[in-house]
Amino acid sequence: MVHMTARKIGVTELVLRDAHQSLMATRMAMEDMVDACEDIDQAGYWSVECWGGATFDACIRFLNEDPWKRLRTFRELMPNSRLQMLLRGQNLLGYRHYEDMVVEKFVEKSAENGMDVFRVFDALNDPRNMAKAMQAVKAVGKHAQGTICYTVSPVHTVEGYIKLAGQLLDMGAESIALKDMAALLQPQPAYDIVKGIKDTYGDVQINVHCHSTTGVTLVSLMKAIEAGADVVDSAISSMSLGPGHNPTESLVAMLEGTGYTTDLDMERLLKIRDHFAAVRPKYKEFESATLVDTDIFSSQIPGGMLSNMESQLKAQGAGDRIREVMEEVPRVKADAGQPPLVTPSSQIVGTQAVFNVLMGRYKVLTGEFADLMLGYYGECLGERNAEVVELAKAQAKKEPITDRPADHLKPEWDELVKAASNLDGYDGSEEDVLTNAMFPGVAPKFLATRDQGPKNVGKTEAQMKAEAAAKKGSPDRPGITGPVKYNVTIAGRSHSVAVEPA
Amino acid sequence: MVHMTARKIGVTELVLRDAHQSLMATRMAMEDMVDACEDIDQAGYWSVECWGGATFDACIRFLNEDPWKRLRTFRELMPNSRLQMLLRGQNLLGYRHYEDMVVEKFVEKSAENGMDVFRVFDALNDPRNMAKAMQAVKAVGKHAQGTICYTVSPVHTVEGYIKLAGQLLDMGAESIALKDMAALLQPQPAYDIVKGIKDTYGDVQINVHCHSTTGVTLVSLMKAIEAGADVVDSAISSMSLGPGHNPTESLVAMLEGTGYTTDLDMERLLKIRDHFAAVRPKYKEFESATLVDTDIFSSQIPGGMLSNMESQLKAQGAGDRIREVMEEVPRVKADAGQPPLVTPSSQIVGTQAVFNVLMGRYKVLTGEFADLMLGYYGECLGERNAEVVELAKAQAKKEPITDRPADHLKPEWDELVKAASNLDGYDGSEEDVLTNAMFPGVAPKFLATRDQGPKNVGKTEAQMKAEAAAKKGSPDRPGITGPVKYNVTIAGRSHSVAVEPA
Repeated sequence: MVHMTARKIGVTELVLRDAHQSLMATRMAMEDMVDACEDIDQAGYWSVECWGGATFDACIRFLNEDPWKRLRTFRELMPNSRLQMLLRGQNLLGYRHYEDMVVEKFVEKSAENGMDVFRVFDALNDPRNMAKAMQAVKAVGKHAQGTICYTVSPVHTVEGYIKLAGQLLDMGAESIALKDMAALLQPQPAYDIVKGIKDTYGDVQINVHCHSTTGVTLVSLMKAIEAGADVVDSAISSMSLGPGHNPTESLVAMLEGTGYTTDLDMERLLKIRDHFAAVRPKYKEFESATLVDTDIFSSQIPGGMLSNMESQLKAQGAGDRIREVMEEVPRVKADAGQPPLVTPSSQIVGTQAVFNVLMGRYKVLTGEFADLMLGYYGECLGERNAEVVELAKAQAKKEPITDRPADHLKPEWDELVKAASNLDGYDGSEEDVLTNAMFPGVAPKFLATRDQGPKNVGKTEAQMKAEAAAKKGSPDRPGITGPVKYNVTIAGRSHSVAVEPA
Repeated sequence: MVHMTARKIGVTELVLRDAHQSLMATRMAMEDMVDACEDIDQAGYWSVECWGGATFDACIRFLNEDPWKRLRTFRELMPNSRLQMLLRGQNLLGYRHYEDMVVEKFVEKSAENGMDVFRVFDALNDPRNMAKAMQAVKAVGKHAQGTICYTVSPVHTVEGYIKLAGQLLDMGAESIALKDMAALLQPQPAYDIVKGIKDTYGDVQINVHCHSTTGVTLVSLMKAIEAGADVVDSAISSMSLGPGHNPTESLVAMLEGTGYTTDLDMERLLKIRDHFAAVRPKYKEFESATLVDTDIFSSQIPGGMLSNMESQLKAQGAGDRIREVMEEVPRVKADAGQPPLVTPSSQIVGTQAVFNVLMGRYKVLTGEFADLMLGYYGECLGERNAEVVELAKAQAKKEPITDRPADHLKPEWDELVKAASNLDGYDGSEEDVLTNAMFPGVAPKFLATRDQGPKNVGKTEAQMKAEAAAKKGSPDRPGITGPVKYNVTIAGRSHSVAVEPA
């Protein structure tokens, strides 16, 4: 087969956001990224994903780093690139719905600080939860990408996803993202969904995002491309695979000689690769051991959700009951109307499954799960279990709703400004107001310590050695961890002596 | 797309041979495999690859295990499976050509001990080096699979591979293997070669073998299947990826919903997976750190060859010259007529490249390289550099040949029997004669120690902890490696005291 003119496939590089979020618990410090930015900026990517909920959270929770400043730095270092973020619709980067004005403010400020492409999603795929954010993005003249969260359930069909794409386009989406956060997207549905959207709505731009956990999704990207996908997501090889994403260089190699090409600059890619190959070992303690895991095809439980539930169980001394919880998850998911499992629905369903196993099925509902059952997170495709809805009503003492959840919220911007202005270290900016609005449990401490500057929680080889030596005793200077008894002879007389560190 | 009747794709499971060869230097002991055999036997594989040159070598070199007995054990434990081996044509499992009667004996004995499918290859893709072995396989009524070693060079073309397939079929090949030992096979050539063979020769069975080093070859398997491939090779997920192979479970997931199916039993696969997930950590010290590496697309140097050259350089105190050697390899390969780089040509070309860098280009030729230049390993597709051929003639004091190399060999079976019969521990079997014929440097010691039984070089967690403790000092009992000085106060008087282990 000879292809005279190859169709150009855009690539979104994930290394600055989702790659380190998935591989090393979002811990990468900005100083470990800046030196790669010029090469990233020049490599020819369609966009550079670099911001989102977890990176924002980790910045203020673990790194004492201002996420807004991180964004401005990216903007400065990558003047030629489309910067891209992941936005949880009406949740913004937090875990609850915000009133519309807060959504507008957040989008405005993000755009002002340098964001170009907003990938707007909702955990339940409820378009009403994405509408305001998309409208706000369009109002500031930026790229509004409507997102389909891919999941597998008895009520999710190719036709349903195609219909959702239409709703997103009606809302003004400039492109459609097919987002596969759990590596569940197999080649055939990838092909069918992309082809269906193109056939139904004409040449709308489609971006495809897959994790690599199940080992199969590079093939899904190939089939999506054959079906007409325009942009696909990948991560530079030294920050790829496992719970992360498919390697960018492999994607390039995959398309060689086919009717498609990425036009990426391989010299630049190798420099980016080498940069992160040197950085990655510093964050080893945060890495997951998973290399490939196809269990998720049967369990439907994303890796991050599984480890969350495991730690909840361990905290209750019930670490041995994970199998029961894993079997409970599909039931809870079904009772809730088959929400996709992604933040925050994955946490809500997972925690309720843990409660069900530990305390009896639906004996206790979490507040969040009750809200989910009562429509306060929006609508799911499936029907909710009416009995569980009754339990939720009784426990939460609230009525179910069917309209847009955010319509039940009162204006809150002025109050949020007031709350921020009471905090130590508040600099008077709307960015600080938003930071505190989204992470009220973490922001006050962060604002108070911000002027101490960023922390790097990665460890150089020298630091790791020093720590290991301190812990275990180095060969040169054995570490004494408690009193040690010796028989010591001084001037011919034997003494029993206990020695411990002073 | 709805596919009413999916075409069944056969799968060859590699975990018992190439997977541990590629991931852990072929060190896996038989006792770490036996418990998985029933599940492997019942999972529905087309064949089970379990024997080859490196496993044979490692058995007698490192594991004090009789490889013939290993084969018989596999036969006994997997009565329902096609057992498959990799055979280096006229080289058998060794590193030189053997006279035809030795080839016949080896094939007879392998069949007798339980082998079913012989994947016959030649490093240079010279059909004359495969003819005798294929004939011998057919003579004992077993499956003779002719092999195309895939490489990329200015003289290798899709058409050339299709032509080679025809030559193999003319020699009586029952199936054709497309063997990609360096993970160089990209999706488009995979498609084109398989399609070309099917279009040219009708419905001949095609097996495709890929390594996963470059991260792209699961896609190549997909395209090969779309082009008509009948059987593909994979390794159970817990023994997959990196320099190994694509995960079997991912392959199954890849085909779901397409017009193809593997019909593998997923319950069995999960048991096999769990078995090797538990075994793998024991061999950690033999594992390579490579997860994905696309450099090979430009360097053409397989990972194993690279590490060989690195250790040769280090042994000469020239570890810093690996870049020069990597640049020299393509030149040496071109001068030799573009042989694919696979055992033994990879070692021959690699070592000569090291010599060229350390001593000046072709100042010294290895005996093997001279033989390669003079045709004693067979013919390559490309033209040899005439000047280097002259150097080889002068150094080796031999004339070039153009006929089948093995035609220059005298009958040697009787001598091989005599040689074996002089060895301690020789049990009088033809198997022992063959073992010594193929590995004369290692077999004598092995035969002498065989009755001590197999060694397992893997380490349990307890063994590793004990070793680490002995090395570093455990937290409970700090290891004192030399005298340590303390100031010790006893009854109010201070003493300077030196303490060391009693």
